[in-house]
Amino acid sequence: MRHYAAPLEKLIEQFEKLPGVGHKSATRLAFHVLAMSKEDASAFAQAIIEAKTVIKTCSVCQNLTEGDKCPICSDPTRDASTICVVALPQDLIAIERTREYNGLYHVLHGVISPLNNIGPEDIRIRELLQRAASDEVKEIILATNPDTEGETTAMYIARLLRPFGIKITRLAYGMPVGGHVEFSDQKTLSMALEGRRELQ
Amino acid sequence: MRHYAAPLEKLIEQFEKLPGVGHKSATRLAFHVLAMSKEDASAFAQAIIEAKTVIKTCSVCQNLTEGDKCPICSDPTRDASTICVVALPQDLIAIERTREYNGLYHVLHGVISPLNNIGPEDIRIRELLQRAASDEVKEIILATNPDTEGETTAMYIARLLRPFGIKITRLAYGMPVGGHVEFSDQKTLSMALEGRRELQ
Repeated sequence: MRHYAAPLEKLIEQFEKLPGVGHKSATRLAFHVLAMSKEDASAFAQAIIEAKTVIKTCSVCQNLTEGDKCPICSDPTRDASTICVVALPQDLIAIERTREYNGLYHVLHGVISPLNNIGPEDIRIRELLQRAASDEVKEIILATNPDTEGETTAMYIARLLRPFGIKITRLAYGMPVGGHVEFSDQKTLSMALEGRRELQ
Repeated sequence: MRHYAAPLEKLIEQFEKLPGVGHKSATRLAFHVLAMSKEDASAFAQAIIEAKTVIKTCSVCQNLTEGDKCPICSDPTRDASTICVVALPQDLIAIERTREYNGLYHVLHGVISPLNNIGPEDIRIRELLQRAASDEVKEIILATNPDTEGETTAMYIARLLRPFGIKITRLAYGMPVGGHVEFSDQKTLSMALEGRRELQ
């Protein structure tokens, strides 16, 4: 039996596809959209389209950006001798918020996870190795999460980087093991950055 | 400090406007949209636009519909002598799901709520009185929620309907007081429909 008018059912279905949104929440969100002004609803739809069409990954650090090169890679005041490697764009933002770091980044867009069928070739490690080949780079900080997959990814990358003779460091265990870079408070993250240790 | 690329920030803001969605959830949803295929994202945006532009209220019962008259009002097998008055379209759906009711509906689109500045003229009571004037109508079931605002609205409407000499009934208190029609289970709702009592 069809319950709501077809366009409403379709909108509920769309909301249901989002992570953590069940049927009841989806229904509530869809009714909220119906109650919006026409301008607000079209601004919402427009934002979805625009985010999908305009956002690319930076040709250098792989972070999300509108242009070819992201604002951090284009900033001449940033220290190009240090690269901080993170799993996700959200992690980069968390580190930027500490205001303790002035180097560049590299976003892997994932971690090695055999259980989820994600191997080294599925994340942006190749691009990192290309950057490591430059003489400019003196240190690479591995800032993946301090959990099993993050550790595995860090160890894997450290082994690949060893031949380059660059200093390779890892965020200090200032964060609780099993935690997430994205959701750490600024103080803990600052401490973790400061106490970073060199990998042997 | 700007953190994400502007179109992404804009999308996060849009998600944050939805009820029950905080900044962290909004960020997670926005990244989910970025991870969607282009087709899926545009289907999502399209569903928002379509729901807003295509859906109107039925000229008879005020339920949400695509055409001028909703499928229930257009269905000749429905019993036009009974009108079930509900606060919201979601409540109508909950009653349809019981498969116990074969009459028509009237959707008020709200309840009288002085605290929220919603008076009798802000909901579709006038349209109900126009329908009550027809000779065809023999019974009007007031199926607003059994809470303070729902009761108040039912009592108010009952008083206005009295001069028409129609039988006016209220859903039985089969439901827990303070509960919601929308989220009641089908059994409870069926019992409430069956045991409906006439208002004196």
